[in-house]
Amino acid sequence: MDKQCSSELIYKGKVVTLHKDEILCENGVHAIREVVSAPGGVAILAIQDQEILLVSQYRYAVQEETLEIPAGTIEPHEELSRCAMRELEEETGYTSDTMNKIFTFFPTPGFCAEVLHIFEAGKLTHLDHPKAMDEDECITAFFLPIEEAMDLVQQGKIKDSKTIIAIQYAAMKYAHTTMK
Amino acid sequence: MDKQCSSELIYKGKVVTLHKDEILCENGVHAIREVVSAPGGVAILAIQDQEILLVSQYRYAVQEETLEIPAGTIEPHEELSRCAMRELEEETGYTSDTMNKIFTFFPTPGFCAEVLHIFEAGKLTHLDHPKAMDEDECITAFFLPIEEAMDLVQQGKIKDSKTIIAIQYAAMKYAHTTMK
Repeated sequence: MDKQCSSELIYKGKVVTLHKDEILCENGVHAIREVVSAPGGVAILAIQDQEILLVSQYRYAVQEETLEIPAGTIEPHEELSRCAMRELEEETGYTSDTMNKIFTFFPTPGFCAEVLHIFEAGKLTHLDHPKAMDEDECITAFFLPIEEAMDLVQQGKIKDSKTIIAIQYAAMKYAHTTMK
Repeated sequence: MDKQCSSELIYKGKVVTLHKDEILCENGVHAIREVVSAPGGVAILAIQDQEILLVSQYRYAVQEETLEIPAGTIEPHEELSRCAMRELEEETGYTSDTMNKIFTFFPTPGFCAEVLHIFEAGKLTHLDHPKAMDEDECITAFFLPIEEAMDLVQQGKIKDSKTIIAIQYAAMKYAHTTMK
């Protein structure tokens, strides 16, 4: 186990916090580790009639329009399954009778402390008056057959880690997809 | 598409660069985006006799010992497949006759510009005198049957995004795993 020798706060922002730490590695070597922290997030795998609910949005950080499963940041003290339910409603207008956690993972454990959770939604219902999304979000939601979503993963057109993980899971569980 | 209005460099370090940008969203709203950049990385799915080559290491950012496929940071001007070959050798002592890119993905497109590439290695050979790993790395390499690796994913014991993606790919392609 690496030991912290010192820790310097470089930046504390709205989403991202950055520390620069000096550590003592297991093998006795001193090293610098830059560590990014973020509030963590939840994502939702929502399936209806063998189709996955996806959202399309422009992602400024990667300068691309991406296809992802609905997701969002955990608010302070917010329970994870409640956060999943809220984000599903805000981004897609749907609600679900259940939320079942299927993955907890580190997107980039090399330098980022963030943890993401993927929930699988149960039976979906579209709400007449869903909660509004954040004012700086422009998101379009739509359903895509699991097999077509897997094709987009294999063609490299779906590039988001949580979305690839969720689609592979759905393909194995519901569509019994084999690789080409 | 969101437009950049201004960009402030907060920090430029060894691995992580952080910018704070003001943007104009598609819907006319002004917003702040904190964007983390990193050099990008490659990871290697290496399979021999239906077993996946994994590495175990302490990850300071997440304060845990993790199980991952071999991976590392792209050096300036380094060709991706060459980087994959080098990291495979440094972390495991193995080399491969081929390197075939199977995924290019964004671990966290919400705030991080980093891109990761997963390569699938071909026929493996163990080298008598492999290149040494970085001096601040303590890594143990071992093989695990694909089915057992999938069990660890489903039990939440393998938590790294690139490793989950690679194992699910291997399970679908080679082990025809179905979900429990």
